[in-house]
Amino acid sequence: MRGIIGERFSVALFGESHGACVGCLVIGCPSGLGLDVEDIQSKVDLRKPFAKGIHTSRMEEDRVELLSGVFEGKTTGAPICLLVRNVDVDSGPYELFRRVPRPGHADYVARLKYGGFADHRGGGIFSGRMTLPMVMAGAVAEKLLRTTLGVETLAYSKEIGGISMGERSLDEIRELRYSNPVRCPDPLAARAMEEAVRRAAEEGDSLGGVVEAICLNVPPGLGEPLLSELDSDLARALFSIPAVKGVEVGLGFRSARMRGSECNDGLRFIGGDVTFSSNNLGGIIGGISNGMPLVLRVAFRPTPSIAKTQRSVDVVEKREVEVSVGGRHDPCVVPRAVPAVEAMISIVLADHALRAGAIPQVLERAKT
Amino acid sequence: MRGIIGERFSVALFGESHGACVGCLVIGCPSGLGLDVEDIQSKVDLRKPFAKGIHTSRMEEDRVELLSGVFEGKTTGAPICLLVRNVDVDSGPYELFRRVPRPGHADYVARLKYGGFADHRGGGIFSGRMTLPMVMAGAVAEKLLRTTLGVETLAYSKEIGGISMGERSLDEIRELRYSNPVRCPDPLAARAMEEAVRRAAEEGDSLGGVVEAICLNVPPGLGEPLLSELDSDLARALFSIPAVKGVEVGLGFRSARMRGSECNDGLRFIGGDVTFSSNNLGGIIGGISNGMPLVLRVAFRPTPSIAKTQRSVDVVEKREVEVSVGGRHDPCVVPRAVPAVEAMISIVLADHALRAGAIPQVLERAKT
Amino acid sequence: MRGIIGERFSVALFGESHGACVGCLVIGCPSGLGLDVEDIQSKVDLRKPFAKGIHTSRMEEDRVELLSGVFEGKTTGAPICLLVRNVDVDSGPYELFRRVPRPGHADYVARLKYGGFADHRGGGIFSGRMTLPMVMAGAVAEKLLRTTLGVETLAYSKEIGGISMGERSLDEIRELRYSNPVRCPDPLAARAMEEAVRRAAEEGDSLGGVVEAICLNVPPGLGEPLLSELDSDLARALFSIPAVKGVEVGLGFRSARMRGSECNDGLRFIGGDVTFSSNNLGGIIGGISNGMPLVLRVAFRPTPSIAKTQRSVDVVEKREVEVSVGGRHDPCVVPRAVPAVEAMISIVLADHALRAGAIPQVLERAKT
Amino acid sequence: MRGIIGERFSVALFGESHGACVGCLVIGCPSGLGLDVEDIQSKVDLRKPFAKGIHTSRMEEDRVELLSGVFEGKTTGAPICLLVRNVDVDSGPYELFRRVPRPGHADYVARLKYGGFADHRGGGIFSGRMTLPMVMAGAVAEKLLRTTLGVETLAYSKEIGGISMGERSLDEIRELRYSNPVRCPDPLAARAMEEAVRRAAEEGDSLGGVVEAICLNVPPGLGEPLLSELDSDLARALFSIPAVKGVEVGLGFRSARMRGSECNDGLRFIGGDVTFSSNNLGGIIGGISNGMPLVLRVAFRPTPSIAKTQRSVDVVEKREVEVSVGGRHDPCVVPRAVPAVEAMISIVLADHALRAGAIPQVLERAKT
Repeated sequence: MRGIIGERFSVALFGESHGACVGCLVIGCPSGLGLDVEDIQSKVDLRKPFAKGIHTSRMEEDRVELLSGVFEGKTTGAPICLLVRNVDVDSGPYELFRRVPRPGHADYVARLKYGGFADHRGGGIFSGRMTLPMVMAGAVAEKLLRTTLGVETLAYSKEIGGISMGERSLDEIRELRYSNPVRCPDPLAARAMEEAVRRAAEEGDSLGGVVEAICLNVPPGLGEPLLSELDSDLARALFSIPAVKGVEVGLGFRSARMRGSECNDGLRFIGGDVTFSSNNLGGIIGGISNGMPLVLRVAFRPTPSIAKTQRSVDVVEKREVEVSVGGRHDPCVVPRAVPAVEAMISIVLADHALRAGAIPQVLERAKT
Repeated sequence: MRGIIGERFSVALFGESHGACVGCLVIGCPSGLGLDVEDIQSKVDLRKPFAKGIHTSRMEEDRVELLSGVFEGKTTGAPICLLVRNVDVDSGPYELFRRVPRPGHADYVARLKYGGFADHRGGGIFSGRMTLPMVMAGAVAEKLLRTTLGVETLAYSKEIGGISMGERSLDEIRELRYSNPVRCPDPLAARAMEEAVRRAAEEGDSLGGVVEAICLNVPPGLGEPLLSELDSDLARALFSIPAVKGVEVGLGFRSARMRGSECNDGLRFIGGDVTFSSNNLGGIIGGISNGMPLVLRVAFRPTPSIAKTQRSVDVVEKREVEVSVGGRHDPCVVPRAVPAVEAMISIVLADHALRAGAIPQVLERAKT
Repeated sequence: MRGIIGERFSVALFGESHGACVGCLVIGCPSGLGLDVEDIQSKVDLRKPFAKGIHTSRMEEDRVELLSGVFEGKTTGAPICLLVRNVDVDSGPYELFRRVPRPGHADYVARLKYGGFADHRGGGIFSGRMTLPMVMAGAVAEKLLRTTLGVETLAYSKEIGGISMGERSLDEIRELRYSNPVRCPDPLAARAMEEAVRRAAEEGDSLGGVVEAICLNVPPGLGEPLLSELDSDLARALFSIPAVKGVEVGLGFRSARMRGSECNDGLRFIGGDVTFSSNNLGGIIGGISNGMPLVLRVAFRPTPSIAKTQRSVDVVEKREVEVSVGGRHDPCVVPRAVPAVEAMISIVLADHALRAGAIPQVLERAKT
Repeated sequence: MRGIIGERFSVALFGESHGACVGCLVIGCPSGLGLDVEDIQSKVDLRKPFAKGIHTSRMEEDRVELLSGVFEGKTTGAPICLLVRNVDVDSGPYELFRRVPRPGHADYVARLKYGGFADHRGGGIFSGRMTLPMVMAGAVAEKLLRTTLGVETLAYSKEIGGISMGERSLDEIRELRYSNPVRCPDPLAARAMEEAVRRAAEEGDSLGGVVEAICLNVPPGLGEPLLSELDSDLARALFSIPAVKGVEVGLGFRSARMRGSECNDGLRFIGGDVTFSSNNLGGIIGGISNGMPLVLRVAFRPTPSIAKTQRSVDVVEKREVEVSVGGRHDPCVVPRAVPAVEAMISIVLADHALRAGAIPQVLERAKT
């Protein structure tokens, strides 16, 4: 549905980059889930900028308010409204972009679509800041999935500016991915990525990259063919993150060059249970989870905001102009998008787990 | 919504590969569109197998029945039900797969999800045959878009078995893409692809590939942020096609390795109108169409059904077995998926064009 | 969603009164439900006309075709498509109504809404015949509810032409409601109703009435506040039946004249279980079922088609005219709407039972 | 969809009676609508209690906060979040009702459905206070409809405690309905109603009643058969208001006792335009608005909270008890429900007007 994602665990977003706040509404979380502000805040903190030259210099406190749906420390089953007030706002640099659309930004299409009434400040609803309410909603989904099913979603920067990380074990990924500003669990690659981001920023330019995510303990049977497959809903959710230009599951585009005999995951019995001898399909067959870890990758284009001079137009004076984009922004969105990727995956998994009945509607019974 | 795609132009699918029929229900097509069976049949015919060794040997007549929603040659505004009876059915070879799931197939997850009640014959709802009702629904969308907005969607095999086509002009693409069994508008590459498919088949194996699609005359302003972006809905729709493992828009994964200064599409005035000096974003910014051609690519894994021996399990006897998959199937699904890619794109575009008010609800007024 | 009712048990309708067929698509029925054509046919037969002077003289065989979603006598979990071909069609009398809208009919609004392209024959999608696909979909829901939860829905004509039935026990209602052409479980009242309908018809006129429904064994806890309450969804579903002008639950409009002390249902313990000492609220509090029988009433206006001369207009010649409505129709829609009321209630209950997890997604496990 | 009403103008509610706030999210309002807090506040003020003995003694300031979707005094096309903080909260009296469900209240079903985790204070999400966010969202819809189409919705207390108002002209209704605490445009009846409410309250009891609504200038052609009819969606929306037990359109239940020749609205030409010679159907035929005023009535049961002793149970001690309900509440919900009825109607009409393309997605073009 327009503006909503998920049917049984539904999320809507609201707010603008430089408006009063950004927030989300979560409808359908089962009752009885232990949830407090700190559960949300800790996830929100993971997307906070902190590294000069690598992250934006906009410094928001991002203090989460939990407005509804929780009572005595447990979810009630009613809608959960979460919001964060915008505080560190500087809309001055954006005034120009009302008439001079920034290349690679939504300024121009927003103008067409909303007739010039969109809130342009800081990019409005198109800002990377809208990943903040995604992360808030995702924190609820993540806690729900973890508590009930033990699902763990690990996203991290796989590649930035063409620099790829090496193979890492799950333990290393778990431990190291948030240990550096680029959110890459390979310290060596991380250092090179940092350097690359810094250099691009200094040159008034920006970088893109790839986020990979692995989800453990996803129950088999999630996903609803026809037309509501798990991968379909994941792809939809991930493309809603600003700057995403590609999504692939398992070996993805690489599998397009393989033969069936290489690509198919064989079945085996291990300890009496059916399992697969490989995971080339990334945990999804026929749109349904198969019990193997979910593996997917998300391509982010480089941040469109760059100091370098670019060609644009002045839509009022109807002439071509040159523009250098000021304002504050990340020279590479990938590191701070990592928690958003995690969040969107959690939202979709929570939704499908509820659809499939894998999570009950009441998590336990209250004592009173 | 589960089992439905689109809000204002909505499509549901039904049927099974070896059941009585496959069909679709299209809800929300405006009234007054000239539509007859031939409009649908001509699209359906483009996905018919015909080339021995390259396509399946299952030979269905695929005769379309138009059951509702059209009166005196025009759509009425009521739901349009379309179906095709299955005729050339041979379910014998599939009996084994009830207990021995085929590697790379949905047999195993279907068993888990539906408790053993799924129609396994010919793959049931997981069959590539379900792209037929997609094509039927897409034909309605395509006619609607073409008639009202002049939208043209051109999909074709870009790469098969690692063989890529060369650069081709739009005119060549338009003219040549359906001129060979692999649906590639580059005759040279097409020949190599054919040869590769044939060879793989002979070796009891299969190939994957990439379908690219270009949509012309897409009006700017389609797509609904937040969470119902045009690219999100396209990705969701395309991942519903069996065997899809990746979707990318514009330069997609390639843009992850670019700098902002290379990737951003500059704005210009041409003949008094704003346009873009490049199309690296593939016609979508901020989830909204920008008036440039839509460009996207879809990765298909190799057909899972192969004659080569593979490892599987017998879920009844609870032991590991070897299996060689019989039945009739395409050694590469890409060529016959081309019309399905086109169809799913058309469905999403028709939906968003209606959402945006770019297509009226009544196409004209009847004379009487 | 437009054209669809239900989220987890979803139903869409298609077809026209004088088109090729009428049908429905049921999405979301759990797998493993025993279902065959006869289950549907037996319900369809209950809405067949048979009594001269009381029912329409259009005699359709109404043979149900089950096209998908059932395999080896059990539902598979895939969409179920059901249809009935129209056979006994006589569209001649309707030609006039393209230009002279029948008073009380949708002719005029259909013309406005669909621009003159609607299928006018026999009322098209506005015909009472569209209750037939409702009944087909309802039959699936009813079987699902009965098999899994023991839910029983008993609808009957409570009042026709101002003649009300007397109090009857549940057993009498169950046994007698389908024993006469007016579907009233009070034989005395039924006779008077029949006579009234016959007389109205002879006078070229028509009657309205009230259908009451009682649902037994509805599990408590169905309904989703806020905005998706059980009574909200029931009311929506029931207003979709042609000619419905009012819906009330429990004492309904009567309760508007009561005091709280009279209207509130007190709570008691009976055999260790909480129950209610009365059922004035008709089994729904706060939008949620409370475990008591659901009781609701639906008001039907008199059939708009009457032989008596009425005032209308000729929209082509733009002048006022008189019209006497021919064609074949029931002089009172109430008796044949009884199964439709039952069907719509069953659809909503099945949907909410699935939403609440009261019915599993797989009814049992297949042996193989 | 669960927790959401409307497809193109969508509303979700959140908050609890004694939680931090109550609020709503409005998705899909076109851009360019002049909107400020005062537009919302003025509607909210109409549901504020003020008359001692007739309204609740809970005195909330109900100060509206407009959090998103409006920029420089105009809607932007982005989601609009509105909320009101709860201030005058006294949850003490409700502690008992955690174990002793109040007769006629949702306490018992909430306990079952949410496993004892629901926020019971002040009735939580089941409180009449949830009509406040309905009114907030309705204010946006009302302004949109008024500004673009001139739609005017007039709701008022038609009957309270069995006392009915007399016939009044539209002008009188418009002028007088908010002139007294019972929101009845007939001053004489209003006085009697006030007296009745006061007396009932003094006797520790409560009253019900009927709200009638008339909508002027509703464009013809709104409503989407099959299954998304205008009356269906209105009924669904109205049943979501707490304490509603019946909805009827036009003559409603009265039409069930009429003959077709009396009930049908004849068509005429007036000034070259087609119109109807009566409005027995209340402006809706076949689920579609016909251009006549919409007329509908909503039955409210008496307030369940009464001081009089009632029978209930203690679910913890598992024994029958007597209970007298304290807390603060209206002895008759009807007067303060009037703005909620108006709001829900406006929401549905705005949604269907957008669906039908009767309101554009951009209301005008901004100058810059």
